[in-house]
Amino acid sequence: MKYAVIGTGALGGFYGARLQRAGCEVHFLLHSDYEHVRTHGLIVESQEGDFTLPQVNAYRDPRDLPACDVVLVCLKATQNHLLPGLLPASGTVVLMQNGLGAEEELARFIAPDRLMAGLAFLCSNKIGPGHIRHLDYGYVRLAELAGGITPRMQQIAADFERAGIPVTLTDDLASARWHKLVWNIPYNGLSVVLNADTNELMAHPATRALVAALMQEVVAGAAVCGRHIEQAFVQKMLADTEKMPPYRTSMKIDSDAGRPMEVEAIYGNPLRIALAAGAQLPRLETLFRQLTFLNRQ
Amino acid sequence: MKYAVIGTGALGGFYGARLQRAGCEVHFLLHSDYEHVRTHGLIVESQEGDFTLPQVNAYRDPRDLPACDVVLVCLKATQNHLLPGLLPASGTVVLMQNGLGAEEELARFIAPDRLMAGLAFLCSNKIGPGHIRHLDYGYVRLAELAGGITPRMQQIAADFERAGIPVTLTDDLASARWHKLVWNIPYNGLSVVLNADTNELMAHPATRALVAALMQEVVAGAAVCGRHIEQAFVQKMLADTEKMPPYRTSMKIDSDAGRPMEVEAIYGNPLRIALAAGAQLPRLETLFRQLTFLNRQ
Repeated sequence: MKYAVIGTGALGGFYGARLQRAGCEVHFLLHSDYEHVRTHGLIVESQEGDFTLPQVNAYRDPRDLPACDVVLVCLKATQNHLLPGLLPASGTVVLMQNGLGAEEELARFIAPDRLMAGLAFLCSNKIGPGHIRHLDYGYVRLAELAGGITPRMQQIAADFERAGIPVTLTDDLASARWHKLVWNIPYNGLSVVLNADTNELMAHPATRALVAALMQEVVAGAAVCGRHIEQAFVQKMLADTEKMPPYRTSMKIDSDAGRPMEVEAIYGNPLRIALAAGAQLPRLETLFRQLTFLNRQ
Repeated sequence: MKYAVIGTGALGGFYGARLQRAGCEVHFLLHSDYEHVRTHGLIVESQEGDFTLPQVNAYRDPRDLPACDVVLVCLKATQNHLLPGLLPASGTVVLMQNGLGAEEELARFIAPDRLMAGLAFLCSNKIGPGHIRHLDYGYVRLAELAGGITPRMQQIAADFERAGIPVTLTDDLASARWHKLVWNIPYNGLSVVLNADTNELMAHPATRALVAALMQEVVAGAAVCGRHIEQAFVQKMLADTEKMPPYRTSMKIDSDAGRPMEVEAIYGNPLRIALAAGAQLPRLETLFRQLTFLNRQ
């Protein structure tokens, strides 16, 4: 299949490069790195093997992108207001973003049956133009907005697996997104507000307890939306994070770089959806308000 | 009456100097500023009138303090573990500190009937050794640990009033301390966590809502402890703060200076007392845990 990558950064650069290396035809839409990548290609450093793609299909103008079977949206969710002007007229659109509600929002502009979520469990950074450093993980979970396990999901999964990226398929997009929020909500926000990495947050009993309490509020939010999250899953998130090397969250990286943070996608949307369904999530709301304040100009 | 001031900083320096100027005999216990103050005295800048006391009774060793009628404890609450070694054997001890529970803790070391709370509504900074800048307010609320309105309270009030410091007397120490927490809990903690002054916190709808929600949790905490705080009082705190010039809270000043913050006195004690009485204060608890983390070495 032919792939377009919208947003060639830490995420899109990594997956796109891996797909191209595995033999897929990939077309990369770039903004600030366009000139550099057109001339020098992409570099991926990874403990799974460093590699360079000296030549990639690079585009600056979305109208120049050829028709593709799959469009991987790898922009930050803070850029989603640009999507109606960036997305090609055809192809399955896979939103590889954090948070909740982006597919539903985008379904106001493009046909809902084109939309899929791709949850990326990936630690990687862009350390220079077209230069990606992959730190850990990388697996992807796919879910159709319309539900079900579809042949196109299986085709995408086959391409990713050939590129060495493990993929799981799920028929419940909301459940997948709520599960991912169990990690994202405590660690992203607290790492910004407290200027800390994951190890520092886990090492102090006060923040460890706060992380755990926030996770329980995510479980409660999921529950009022009809999604059950097992306590064993919560415990695994805590234990896995304790075992990880010190990790600077994506929101902390954005904050340190002076970029807008994905506060609405990761906090605002889940909070509003859960409140509307009758949940009380006071700790999450506190963190949301703190981050909204910090996210002001 | 003869006064001892334990801790001659922004608070103790201000009140002690005003009492001495009004004719009281005042004895100042100092630590780092001892040499400077013994030689140069105290300077108070204030819109109520600048003044200098070229000569004050300065002490470095608490054993040198003469017997006094009233001992004003003006240390930070973070220093209260030192009090058993600092307090003279006689005299009424007035704890001029923020937070909750310090009188009860100190009553394990000295006779409870010696103890009084002095809540200071004061904006002042120490800008150099023995050099106080008084910015605004200054009134004091006195409450006996044992309750009641006593003659010694009235004598202290008379001295303060003669020094131009308005004083109110209350027979309910816990109520006075909970009322003061309505302001201290939201503004102190959020100013540190979000690196903001009071005006910035009030100007953004997200933090204004969070301030108001935290105030309601203080009201709920007071309620389970049998203390009623009127909604009109909460509204007045919000409105007064909006009208104030931008104010850097005492906790923010401590944090900026790298000093320990009064997290246990202002957050930990009220939270534990309220939780034990059956309240749920999740926003306050979140802020407490964040501040506990930030307060680590």
